[in-house]
Amino acid sequence: MTTQRLVLATRNRHKVAELLAILTEAGLDVELVGADAYPHIPDVPETGVTFAENALLKAHALAQATGLPAVADDSGLCVDVLGGAPGIFSARWSGRHGDDQANLDLLLAQLGDIDAPHRGAHFACAAALALPDGTEQVVEGTLDGTLRTAPAGTGGFGYDPILQPHGETRTCAELTPAEKNAISHRGKAFRALVPIVKQLLG
Amino acid sequence: MTTQRLVLATRNRHKVAELLAILTEAGLDVELVGADAYPHIPDVPETGVTFAENALLKAHALAQATGLPAVADDSGLCVDVLGGAPGIFSARWSGRHGDDQANLDLLLAQLGDIDAPHRGAHFACAAALALPDGTEQVVEGTLDGTLRTAPAGTGGFGYDPILQPHGETRTCAELTPAEKNAISHRGKAFRALVPIVKQLLG
Repeated sequence: MTTQRLVLATRNRHKVAELLAILTEAGLDVELVGADAYPHIPDVPETGVTFAENALLKAHALAQATGLPAVADDSGLCVDVLGGAPGIFSARWSGRHGDDQANLDLLLAQLGDIDAPHRGAHFACAAALALPDGTEQVVEGTLDGTLRTAPAGTGGFGYDPILQPHGETRTCAELTPAEKNAISHRGKAFRALVPIVKQLLG
Repeated sequence: MTTQRLVLATRNRHKVAELLAILTEAGLDVELVGADAYPHIPDVPETGVTFAENALLKAHALAQATGLPAVADDSGLCVDVLGGAPGIFSARWSGRHGDDQANLDLLLAQLGDIDAPHRGAHFACAAALALPDGTEQVVEGTLDGTLRTAPAGTGGFGYDPILQPHGETRTCAELTPAEKNAISHRGKAFRALVPIVKQLLG
């Protein structure tokens, strides 16, 4: 039996590395290829209004374009006092897609007057699998915590330097990659996706 | 009987003019003074997490500082797909308090991928009255509509150029001040406050 190839719908190298670690650790024996291996395939507009809708949009688009099973995630930071925003807009919160520093700085400025009891937030991730025949599955994972007033730590990416998980004294950016993957929204979602991938591709 | 003096907890000249028109039209026979008449009184941090909490915070602080009855409002734009944000953060959405253009530009950039059926939003206003003895009342008003993808109109302020009220073909910034006050969140809230002011100060 040849190794199955699975395409990851992300060009973010941080995410590719993180997902490789999570999926390999969870015992998924497939060849993972990032979307950057298919530079001619345009990014799909993320027109969904939930993490699950956007993850499925990206997975289906990539499965159709490559003829291979595709996995995608959509994830973000949901702030209680913002009614769950930035949410699906996390990566473009400052208006500039992928500018982690600008996104994080803006969020801290917006929440400047908000004190600790009202700084609850959680990371959320929807992980989707789509096959070229249209089959789809999507699962979700979350990580609850509170928002710091200033960033701490140099690991991770995105909003990791300002989210302190419940039960932790460190931010996500101060955890080791293994510690983070063990509790993270993305870790939970992709570990839940592994048995589904195995069943559908097995 | 001497005319009662009432202090308005805002230094925003647009808001002072708008409230003067609304309250006079509603038959409130009081002398209205803006907070800029008391330049030594510092602005109170808006630490509330609802419009009503922030309106009451501002009204109480001004009533205590001046020894006069004080009215305050907190208002903002609540976007459905953002879970009600910007909400209480509307005036500082870009991180720069009161920069209407930056706030509006940021919101349009954040919602760039979101199409018409998901661009529902409403303006909300809480109007509060506080007396120096601690008596308080707060009422709310809303204006439902949809968000344009580009600003239109030069009237009003804040997010007026991008909210098109339900049943209208124009944005709030294309309405005359009288048309806007007749349907607006702030008009509704302050008209509801008038009989309360009359009763408590009468």
